[in-house]
Amino acid sequence: MERPEILMTPGPTQVPPEVLQAQGGPLVYHRGPGYGRLLREVTTGLKAMLKTEGDVLVFTASGTGGLESAVSNLFSPGDRVVVPVAGYFGDRFARIAEAFHLDVRRIEYDWGRATVPEDIAAAVAEAPTKGVLAQHSETSTGVVHDIEAIGHVTREADALLVVDVISSVGAVPYEGDAWGVDVAVGGSQKALGATPGLSFVSVSDAAWAASREATSPRFYFDWAAYKHSYDLPDPESPWTPAISLLLGLREALRLYQEEGEEAVLARHRVLSRATKEGVRALGLDLDGEHLDRAWAVTAVRAPEGIDGNELVAKVRADHGIVLAPGQGPLKGKVFRIGHLGQYDRFDIIRCLAALELTLEAMGYPVKRGAAVAAAEDVFASASAAP
Amino acid sequence: MERPEILMTPGPTQVPPEVLQAQGGPLVYHRGPGYGRLLREVTTGLKAMLKTEGDVLVFTASGTGGLESAVSNLFSPGDRVVVPVAGYFGDRFARIAEAFHLDVRRIEYDWGRATVPEDIAAAVAEAPTKGVLAQHSETSTGVVHDIEAIGHVTREADALLVVDVISSVGAVPYEGDAWGVDVAVGGSQKALGATPGLSFVSVSDAAWAASREATSPRFYFDWAAYKHSYDLPDPESPWTPAISLLLGLREALRLYQEEGEEAVLARHRVLSRATKEGVRALGLDLDGEHLDRAWAVTAVRAPEGIDGNELVAKVRADHGIVLAPGQGPLKGKVFRIGHLGQYDRFDIIRCLAALELTLEAMGYPVKRGAAVAAAEDVFASASAAP
Repeated sequence: MERPEILMTPGPTQVPPEVLQAQGGPLVYHRGPGYGRLLREVTTGLKAMLKTEGDVLVFTASGTGGLESAVSNLFSPGDRVVVPVAGYFGDRFARIAEAFHLDVRRIEYDWGRATVPEDIAAAVAEAPTKGVLAQHSETSTGVVHDIEAIGHVTREADALLVVDVISSVGAVPYEGDAWGVDVAVGGSQKALGATPGLSFVSVSDAAWAASREATSPRFYFDWAAYKHSYDLPDPESPWTPAISLLLGLREALRLYQEEGEEAVLARHRVLSRATKEGVRALGLDLDGEHLDRAWAVTAVRAPEGIDGNELVAKVRADHGIVLAPGQGPLKGKVFRIGHLGQYDRFDIIRCLAALELTLEAMGYPVKRGAAVAAAEDVFASASAAP
Repeated sequence: MERPEILMTPGPTQVPPEVLQAQGGPLVYHRGPGYGRLLREVTTGLKAMLKTEGDVLVFTASGTGGLESAVSNLFSPGDRVVVPVAGYFGDRFARIAEAFHLDVRRIEYDWGRATVPEDIAAAVAEAPTKGVLAQHSETSTGVVHDIEAIGHVTREADALLVVDVISSVGAVPYEGDAWGVDVAVGGSQKALGATPGLSFVSVSDAAWAASREATSPRFYFDWAAYKHSYDLPDPESPWTPAISLLLGLREALRLYQEEGEEAVLARHRVLSRATKEGVRALGLDLDGEHLDRAWAVTAVRAPEGIDGNELVAKVRADHGIVLAPGQGPLKGKVFRIGHLGQYDRFDIIRCLAALELTLEAMGYPVKRGAAVAAAEDVFASASAAP
């Protein structure tokens, strides 16, 4: 049997044994009180996490399915939407909207840049706009965009705000209702550390109203079908759900609640800083803007003469640690370290040590232990803080 | 901790411990050779099971998602399709096609009747028809329709044949290419006994050709995206897949291959007969046509004065065994015993004994042991057979 690899990827992230054990347990039948309880516990936990009084719906699907559900439930062909694109997942959101024949106004940024709320305000002002589709944390660059500011724009313009929080919620500060988010889309395999296969959305009253007018075809992701089943005395899912993954997600939510949101976010902040300082101590440059907010994933520029993909492949082959490569125009130019999810300090230390060894083996001048020492500095000062 | 319930439902079915253990194991990262191997083993196993030389694609979704994928990838708004509706899932297939604005010609049957290939031929002859959407095993009634004969109709008319094999494949004889099936849609949680959350489709050359012309919007279920990722040197899924469920499905396929198709089908035939004879020995009537083919699920008429739903609830409450109630017009009138999946003789015996005890407790005259004895008769003669 091969030794399992260690994931330092921005999703799926490492899965705690409690979660694995839960999804390896016997099924709860998906009609009846047992499932109703399970579903309610999961949606209640997610609502608290998403900071919303709205509904939360859970799909058996990747996060991409949740994003599609927002497009098909909220809009009709020809509806104008504004989509800031500053990375791979911004581009994906735009492509979904294009596939559903919306009138998509892209705002293109160099990948790694933060989106500018004023640009969005200008694009929204050009023509009547039904919605803005944005990323909170753009997983391909690590950049965390200013959703609060974008929320001011959409409220002013009476447009819907749809936010991909897949790699942000539970890793960086997020406010749903307070920021004016109408629909947030999350996934099981990110900060929560459950396994992939479940996506969830929060739906505001305004989003429900829009969904009743929207004519885009939908069935599997039809929100109204979910709402109808959730409102039964024993809540159900409209189609047979991935029961095992829900058992795992419930356990992941329990761990999240046990640690507490404040502690979870503080942990992400410190692990992110330690990663960034460690990388800088090796003389490497980070990629992206406003990196003090980028608590989910760190994008690092591959040093001159070293291909980022080859570096990722070598860390994996030599040390069994999986980093993520660059995507799109950043392919080969950056590599990414995921630190959202169930990680602790020594996961970061281990990862930085592997990076030191691999860079040295690839001919890059490394002062052994430099990255690890820089991370330890961060941890020591974090512990000393009041 | 509550004792797990025993599922005698037509999906999800009982999950073998090997499968649970596999999906409780560490993740395989979804980019790279490990995942490529996993995906290839799963698709190769499913191709053999679906008896096709075509492609097989796997979605993170319920079976309903797989059905939607067939509608959105094959057809354009306004395309005429013929949909025989003889139960809950026939109706669902028609509703999906209606949601995507196809021109849906329903052929309505009383639930429990088998569809008539001549009716389909007549409906197809009325107007140019792009496809026929049919069930193989209609899970709500147990009736197994004659797909081979329908295949003659669609080939003659040059229409696509799309078949819901969710509760048939692996439980009753099925031939994909030989019957002229263009697209078959299956699910993980049925005969294979994996847990719910994965749906798979087979796609013929004619179906691929149709998909290139089809303009219905699709993204998450876009077959072309899957095909593109599957054809990479290390096969991938286009969106982060439910890796754990794929690990479980691989194990379920291994168990299927180990037992062998012939033995699996023979087991389903004998368990079905034993169930039906057992029920008849209690003086109950079966519901549906051509029941000698109904190896997946048995629908039983609730006796005069006893509500089928109450019976199902009481068997569950008193004995921890979950049967399935009637659906739609059969609600309260029938109850269903699922025997597709990883069941053996004593699962049937246990279920019949629970039925005897519950019926007696509800005031129905029962000769104790009668159902069990009838089932034993079937098992004894099956064992004596050459």
